[in-house]
Parts: sequence; C-alpha cells; structure tokens
Amino acid sequence: MVEKIGFIGLGIMGEPMAANILKAGHALMVYNRTPEKTGILADKGALTASSPAELAAWADIIILMLTGPEATDAVLYSANGILSVNTAGKTLVNMSTVSPEYTTTIARCLTPGDITFIDAPVSGSKKPATDGTLIILAGGPRHAVSALEPLLLTMGRKVVYCGEAGQGSAMKMTVNLLLGVMIAGLAETVNLARRLHLDTDLVLDTILAGPLGCPIFNLKKDMLRQDDYPVQFPLKHMTKDLRFVLQTADAAGAAVPATHAAFQLYRQGVGLGNGDLDFAAVQKSLAALNDR
Amino acid sequence: MVEKIGFIGLGIMGEPMAANILKAGHALMVYNRTPEKTGILADKGALTASSPAELAAWADIIILMLTGPEATDAVLYSANGILSVNTAGKTLVNMSTVSPEYTTTIARCLTPGDITFIDAPVSGSKKPATDGTLIILAGGPRHAVSALEPLLLTMGRKVVYCGEAGQGSAMKMTVNLLLGVMIAGLAETVNLARRLHLDTDLVLDTILAGPLGCPIFNLKKDMLRQDDYPVQFPLKHMTKDLRFVLQTADAAGAAVPATHAAFQLYRQGVGLGNGDLDFAAVQKSLAALNDR
Amino acid sequence: MVEKIGFIGLGIMGEPMAANILKAGHALMVYNRTPEKTGILADKGALTASSPAELAAWADIIILMLTGPEATDAVLYSANGILSVNTAGKTLVNMSTVSPEYTTTIARCLTPGDITFIDAPVSGSKKPATDGTLIILAGGPRHAVSALEPLLLTMGRKVVYCGEAGQGSAMKMTVNLLLGVMIAGLAETVNLARRLHLDTDLVLDTILAGPLGCPIFNLKKDMLRQDDYPVQFPLKHMTKDLRFVLQTADAAGAAVPATHAAFQLYRQGVGLGNGDLDFAAVQKSLAALNDR
Amino acid sequence: MVEKIGFIGLGIMGEPMAANILKAGHALMVYNRTPEKTGILADKGALTASSPAELAAWADIIILMLTGPEATDAVLYSANGILSVNTAGKTLVNMSTVSPEYTTTIARCLTPGDITFIDAPVSGSKKPATDGTLIILAGGPRHAVSALEPLLLTMGRKVVYCGEAGQGSAMKMTVNLLLGVMIAGLAETVNLARRLHLDTDLVLDTILAGPLGCPIFNLKKDMLRQDDYPVQFPLKHMTKDLRFVLQTADAAGAAVPATHAAFQLYRQGVGLGNGDLDFAAVQKSLAALNDR
Repeated sequence: MVEKIGFIGLGIMGEPMAANILKAGHALMVYNRTPEKTGILADKGALTASSPAELAAWADIIILMLTGPEATDAVLYSANGILSVNTAGKTLVNMSTVSPEYTTTIARCLTPGDITFIDAPVSGSKKPATDGTLIILAGGPRHAVSALEPLLLTMGRKVVYCGEAGQGSAMKMTVNLLLGVMIAGLAETVNLARRLHLDTDLVLDTILAGPLGCPIFNLKKDMLRQDDYPVQFPLKHMTKDLRFVLQTADAAGAAVPATHAAFQLYRQGVGLGNGDLDFAAVQKSLAALNDR
Repeated sequence: MVEKIGFIGLGIMGEPMAANILKAGHALMVYNRTPEKTGILADKGALTASSPAELAAWADIIILMLTGPEATDAVLYSANGILSVNTAGKTLVNMSTVSPEYTTTIARCLTPGDITFIDAPVSGSKKPATDGTLIILAGGPRHAVSALEPLLLTMGRKVVYCGEAGQGSAMKMTVNLLLGVMIAGLAETVNLARRLHLDTDLVLDTILAGPLGCPIFNLKKDMLRQDDYPVQFPLKHMTKDLRFVLQTADAAGAAVPATHAAFQLYRQGVGLGNGDLDFAAVQKSLAALNDR
Repeated sequence: MVEKIGFIGLGIMGEPMAANILKAGHALMVYNRTPEKTGILADKGALTASSPAELAAWADIIILMLTGPEATDAVLYSANGILSVNTAGKTLVNMSTVSPEYTTTIARCLTPGDITFIDAPVSGSKKPATDGTLIILAGGPRHAVSALEPLLLTMGRKVVYCGEAGQGSAMKMTVNLLLGVMIAGLAETVNLARRLHLDTDLVLDTILAGPLGCPIFNLKKDMLRQDDYPVQFPLKHMTKDLRFVLQTADAAGAAVPATHAAFQLYRQGVGLGNGDLDFAAVQKSLAALNDR
Repeated sequence: MVEKIGFIGLGIMGEPMAANILKAGHALMVYNRTPEKTGILADKGALTASSPAELAAWADIIILMLTGPEATDAVLYSANGILSVNTAGKTLVNMSTVSPEYTTTIARCLTPGDITFIDAPVSGSKKPATDGTLIILAGGPRHAVSALEPLLLTMGRKVVYCGEAGQGSAMKMTVNLLLGVMIAGLAETVNLARRLHLDTDLVLDTILAGPLGCPIFNLKKDMLRQDDYPVQFPLKHMTKDLRFVLQTADAAGAAVPATHAAFQLYRQGVGLGNGDLDFAAVQKSLAALNDR
C-alpha cells in the first residue's frame, strides 16, 4: 500500500523537509497558509490543498511543521481545519516546536482509537533540513513511531524515541535550552574578546581546536567573525523556543537561571530589530549593553 | 647551553606539568609552599628549593603555577621571594590563571630590560596536564615566546601567541567564560530533563551525537549520569576563575549577563560544600533550587 | 432600589471583603467552591448559593475574588457557571488578580450591551481587607465605575480609575512588580547584614528612619527580625502574581530584569516549601543560597 | 580646647558638609585635589592646605570625603600624604563610601595607640548634605565615636553607632543595596506602566499613597515623570557603590541576586553615557532594552 502524505507548513524548515519526502517517492499533498509557497513543490510533483480539511481528507499521514501554538490551533480546530473531517485511522505527526504542555493538550483533545498522534520535533536548522540530516525527537506509541520511521528518515538521519506523546517536545526543550545558552555564551566570549583587544579569529580558532569545539560553533564562526548574520535559524524563533523552555521549566519546577539570562538577550535582540537575522546575532544585544 | 628550569606550585595541575618538563630531559628545580608535595618529583630527579629565592637564584627560567594573586604575590614579593635575588637575564613565566589586570600589574613592577616576563595560562585540566596536551595561551614579547616554545611544548600540544604580556590571561578569560557557561548550560539541560522524566542517558547521547556535541561534554557525561563528581577541575577554582572573568569584563565595559548567572550557580556550589568536587557538580546547585 | 450583591470567592481576602459589604447594609449572596467557608457570612445574614449560576441569577452585581484564571474560568464558563444564566443588565466585577491579557479575553467573550464588565483588583492584603482600607484599581466604562464607587468604598478607602477594562489589572501588575522587588530587596539587605555581623534591628530601624522607610517595610519588620512569617499574603500568591507580571511584561516588550531575579527567589521559596508563609519568607530562599 | 578640623574632598557631598562644620563655628582647614574647589570655603573663613600632609600636621581631627579607594590611598599613603606626618593623638574619620574590606585594611595599617580611626559613611545625598540632615553610620571605638558626635551632628541629624571600625561601611553597604534595588524597581515599574499605556502620574501617585510610598520615591517622582534627571546623586557613583556591595556580599558569602540584576542596569547606564545624570536615570537603561 502506498501511503499518502499530507504536509502543512512550508517555511524555512518545512519546505525542504517536504521536498525530501517527495524526492523519496512518496505521494505528497501540501498546504500553506500563504499559497504562493506551494508553487515550488507543485512543480516537483506535489498536489496542493486549498485547506487543511482537504489535505486531511486525502492523506493517511498528516505532518505539521508550523511556527507555534496559534498556527497549530488554526490548522487543527478552525472551520476548514483537520479535525473538521473524518480522521479515523489516520496519523497526525506534529513536527513543530511547541511546549510539551501544549502537545499533551492536543493529545488529550483527540479521540483515542480514532487518530494516532505523534509529536516529532526536530533538532537542526535549514541546512540539515535540506540535506535530510535532521535528528527527529519522537514521542507517541512505540509501535506507531516504529512504523513511521522510514518516512521520518527521508527527512532526518536519526529518530530518537523519547517516550509517550509529549516527550518528543520535552526532549526538544532540553536541546533548545542548551543551544540557546551555548550560543549566548559564545556571543559573550566574542564580546569580551573584542573589548580585551584580542583577535576574534584567534579566539574562535582556539576554542574550536579545544575541548569546547563543536559543530554548532563552527557553523556560527564566520557570522561572528564578520558580524554578519545571514539567517539559518531566525533569532525570533529562538526567542519563541526559549519562551517555551522557560514556561516548561516553570511548570516542572526546574531551576534554569542561565537560560533566563540568555532568554533576555534574545528577547532584546527582537526588540533591537534583529529578529529576522540568524540567532547568532544575539551578539548585537551584548554590543548594545556594553560601555560606549 | 642547557637551561635550568625552576617550577613553583605543585598542585593538581603543576605537579604533572613539572613531571613532563623533567621527562623531556630538562634540569629542574621545584618549590612548593607545603614541602611534602616535592617528594615525588625529587624521586624522579628534580632538585628541591627551600624558598622561591633559592629557586630563582639557580634557574634561568622560572615557571609559576599557583592558585591566584595572593599566592603569586607571596612568591614574588616576600622576603624570600623571587624578586629578592638578582634576576637579570632570567625569564619569568606565569602559567597560573589570574586576571589580565593583575598580570599587567606584575609586568609593570618588573624592571624592563632586566627580567623577561611572559604570561602563559593553560586551557585544559588534570588529564591534558598529565598527557602533556594542554593548550598554552601565551602573552609577552614575540621572540621570547618563540624561544620558549620548545619548553612549553613539553607541557602542551599547542602554543597560541596572543599578544603582549597580559593577553595570554585575556585569552584565558574568554575560554573560561565559555567553559563556565557551557557546563552550567549542560547542568540546566540535565536538570530540566530529569524534571520532565526524560532518560538522562538518552538526552546526553542525543546532544553528543548532534551539533552541540563536544569533548568537554563527553568528559562530564558520566559524572552527570551518575551524579558523582570525582574532581578533574575543582568547582572552587572555576568559581574563582569566573570571578576574575567578571572583574575583567566589568573593567573592560563588556556585558556578560549569562556569565553572571552561571557564576552565581558555581558560587552557590561552594556554599553548598561542593567546592572540592569537579565543577560539573554545579548540577547540585540547580537541584537545590528546584521545587521539592 | 436596593441592589443585590453576589460575591464569589471567600479566601483570605474575599471573606473580609464580603463581610464589609454586608456590614454596610447590602443584600449579599455568597458562593465558595468549598462550601464550609460560607458559614461565617451566613451567620451574619448573607444568603448562600449552591452554584455560581444560582448566585448570578439572583444578583445585580456579581463580584469575583478568586485565585487565578483557572478558578475564574470555572466560575464563568462551566455548566453551572455565571454565563449559563441570563445576565442582561447585570454588572460583573472581577477583583481577582489576573493578567491584563486574561482580563481583556474575558471582556471580549462577554456580549457587549448585555453585561457590564469591570476589572477591579486591589492593592493591600489581609489587614486592609479586614479594615476596609484597600486601594481599588478599577478599569471599565467610566460611568459604570463611578456608579459602583459607593459599593467599592465599603471594601476600600480609595478607588483609582485606571481606564478601560483591563487597565485595572495593568495597574495592579505595576504595583505587584514593585512590591515583589522591594521585599526581595529588603530580604537581601537583611541577608547581607547578618553575614556582616550587623545588628538586624539596627539595620531595619536605620532604614525605616531614613528615605527608604515605608509602611510595607514596617509591616514586615518583625517577621524579618524574628525570622517567623505568619501569613498576611502568602508567598505562593506573590509567586503567581509575579508570573503574571513577567508574562505581561514579555507580551508588552518591557524589560524588567530585576523582577526576573526577584521572581526566581519567590519561585524557589515555593520549592523550599515556604509557599504558605508570608511572602517576606523570601528571606529563606536567600539563606539557602548563602555560603554554609 | 577648640579642636582643629581638617576636611579633605570637596565634591558634591564634601563641600556642603565642610560648610556646615564651618557654620557651626569650628576652626576648619580644607584640601582638595583640584584646588579651585577650595575658594568658596576659603571665602567663608576656612584655611586651605596645599597638601594632605600640611592639613594633617595642623588638624586634630581629619575627615575624608573622597570618591573611592584610589583617591583615599593617594591622600593617605603618597609622599605628601597624611601618614607622612606625625599623627599621634589625632583622629582620622573616613566618611567616604568604601567597602568594609578596604576600611579594615586601612585600620590594620594604622599604628594602634597612635591615631584613632573611625569610619563614618553617610546615608543621604546632596540635599541632606546641604541641610545638615545626613544619617551618619559610624564604626570605631565606642567612646571615640561618642566624643565625635557633636562634630558629626553639625553635618547630620543622627549618628548610628554600628560597631568597630568597618561596621559603619558594612551598614552603608546594606543601605546602598536597598537603595539601588528600590530605584531599579521603581524604574521597572514606570517602564512597564508606559508600555501598558497607563498614566505615569497616576501610577506614581498610587504608589506614593499606598504601603510602598517612601521619601526616596517622592524625591525621584518628578524625574521619572518628566524623564529628566538633574543630578542629586550621580548614576556613576551608584554603580561604584553597588560594585562595592557585590564585592562585599561575595566575600561574605551572601546571596544577593536582585542586586546583581540592578547593578547590571546601572552599569549599562554608565555605558549609555548617563553616568553624570541622577541615578534615577537607570530608567533609560530599561528603555534601551525594551522592544522597539
């Protein structure tokens, strides 16, 4: 049986992910709120839906890759939303980054035994999305995640099974926390280095060559060197993701003070008008705080 | 000409560093405030001095590896200190971690043209000190650092030339900043993961396999897994080092808010009685802040 | 015409507030989720309702004094809730502390021209609630607030008109912010004083006699002196209120970093098991962070 | 016996304090690093010294009102400094704000039985200095402080005896901590109020009329209303004073996280070029952090 895949949300991440599903030979229907984004995929052979409902009626597996809870609510619960059609026997896979709390709220609203729900947020940004090398953090019934694995591996290089629905999002929170703190830390490092009249290149090379060196720093190195931040993952999305992390930590009673401090820097970056730059532009928030 | 090397400060780091100098065939004299520490090196062929002055009178190159400015002041300026003897033509190499401000104060007090001063703090802890794979961050006259390189490479795998005297310490500050923030971030990650009932091993393995994976996390992984922190680099020293970083950043007018947050966690770790554990025990500071 | 007043929520604050309405001679019906709380007021002459719906059907003016959005949602929207009956011509007064965002959400859901909605949170805790000396921060149509003023003044000594519905809550957020920061600041002062071996009484008296002296510090003085915190306003409620403040500030794009720091202390106080003590017990959060 | 008073340091605070000593009929000699400042007092009858040594040789009681440890070191220990003359039987009163640690360092360096040392920093800024209504926080031998009280009361309205030398500074640290946090809190309050479209006057009046109302807020009210900050106490001095507080707290093992957050705001104010404005201009640091 050939499964029919529906994909909703064709942003920076969603578009290359959908393209990889198509490339793997699956039957694909796409939907995006702003319809012009569907053109490229349609040219490559994807069907296009005029509403989430149309897509949900056609597809066996419905994938969401949206920017947050508001967009997800709209796609699920509106008049032409997914849940306005009969979804018995279908699988809903939410790959958007949302809080575990929101995920369990969705799961609770779906009729058990009717639709299968999996949360599967991803680790990685634009480039791994394009290369199909994302790490996929999946929560839901174990057998359902296993069954879905071949499809997920068209988009990623690894599927990490994290537990029941919501635990994929939980895992994503922990990864985002560390990502946000590490890049804020790297930005503070470069900020201090400049103030101390050290050569930025030398500092970054020294770090990359030592025990703190890691692929993400390598990826951001040239941005920080040149103080130029072409977007891989927008600062405004990192801000949103860290807001989810803080809400999750607050609800779970977990102390995360360094994350609080980092969040305030990203937050301020949005305020400074840097929300659409890559999130390494958090460096600019520090520059604005320095002595003149 | 065979140079005579004097080494002062035989702590966790200093002892294996001195041992590597000896192993490379250099003539070595050692001094330590608490004399019992000199025994192991004496057994291996090192001479022992009964005061910094005695060591300074004998040696061509005097290396310091001490715990901070107080210890350094004592060794330099006291009645039996290094500067109580004629040091013309000798080289003084401070490998201790101190602030750039303190380093430039030392440099200013030394008679120019008399003794050559190099600051050369190291990146790396007990294991690389033992293996001779430290990264050495050197500041001072370029030709003097070049001339010293073969000796330094008996202790490390790389010498990074950072600029004039004080810039080695400046570079060390930037590395310590990032180290402190990254391990605090990793601890917050593990802390949140536990609260969300995620498997700690799974979280750490996912991080290590992805773009945030780095040798230092690999080194601390088992400590966090088992909540057991045999000392590689003591938490009390990380606290002291971050205090220097904050003072340096304050003096330089550099904003480092995430470092402030991290410092408070390490600071509290000392308060909780964890100062002699490895600094990854900062995890325990978070556990103390969580909801019960 | 004698207006019939309904009062929902008989906690630490609500009970004395309702008692003051009764004492002023108004016809009063009360409802509380846990019915045993209604006894004292019933003894004094209040009617009791078995559901919010029963109360809403009877009353002209419905006052809510609840602990947060969940309780408010339940009272408004549940099967036996206020909005299950015909509320045309009635006035709904929410005196609970909730976020401005939540208040405007309520206002938006009510049929305009049907029920009049006023938000009127209060400044002051148990004692002014008992004495009828609260400050009432009111938002809603100006004429409606004016008409309500005599009733409100049975509970308070002053009604501050803040603007349209939601602005009462907005004003409350600003007062709570300052309250939370000031008591955290006082606690840090006492904490430092103790560590410096100063006499706590002398410090508090010096502060109260100088330009920082204020009634709230006077109120908390003996608690801090004796390290004993009989509840006036519970720490868990201050924590909740500051959470609303931070959410409101985040949504409004307002930087409030000292409030963030204070929130974490209260938050930790809940974690330490001090949630039911007076919020001046935030002092204990600091003691837990000090060096041992 | 008429005592001869020497006064060193004629800044914003020192000049009116010295003028009040003179007005009370004491014989006064003044010294200031930049000599033009001595003119006004000389016109009123004060003698002028050309060096701290000259002043110290003449005076029985030597008062210092300087901006920090560097200036104090210079006045005490330089070639023409106070300690270059015979000070047996004289009293040295340091009214500058310095850390308790620095104060005890001074005390330790003075020959016991020779000169009597008292530390007596003040609470209050320009206006109380002019009006002679400062609160004076005194540490030193109890009988010496008692003997000095009439002189101190020419400058202040109250002398608080805090304990041995250093405890005056300790008390000052606690007052400064609270002052810094409270004004930062008030600034955050006004900042949030503006973002929520509340009337700033209404917010400030509501606060001043309630349990949080205090003289210092009354003093800063118009500054915040008009966003105009004529200097009473310069922001750069508050920044310096909070740096002492943080160093003192760090040395004493006292947790003061809200003070950390407040310090960063003042620090940034200096960076923004607002160091010479009144410290209520910390408001501008927040405005710079808000969303645009």
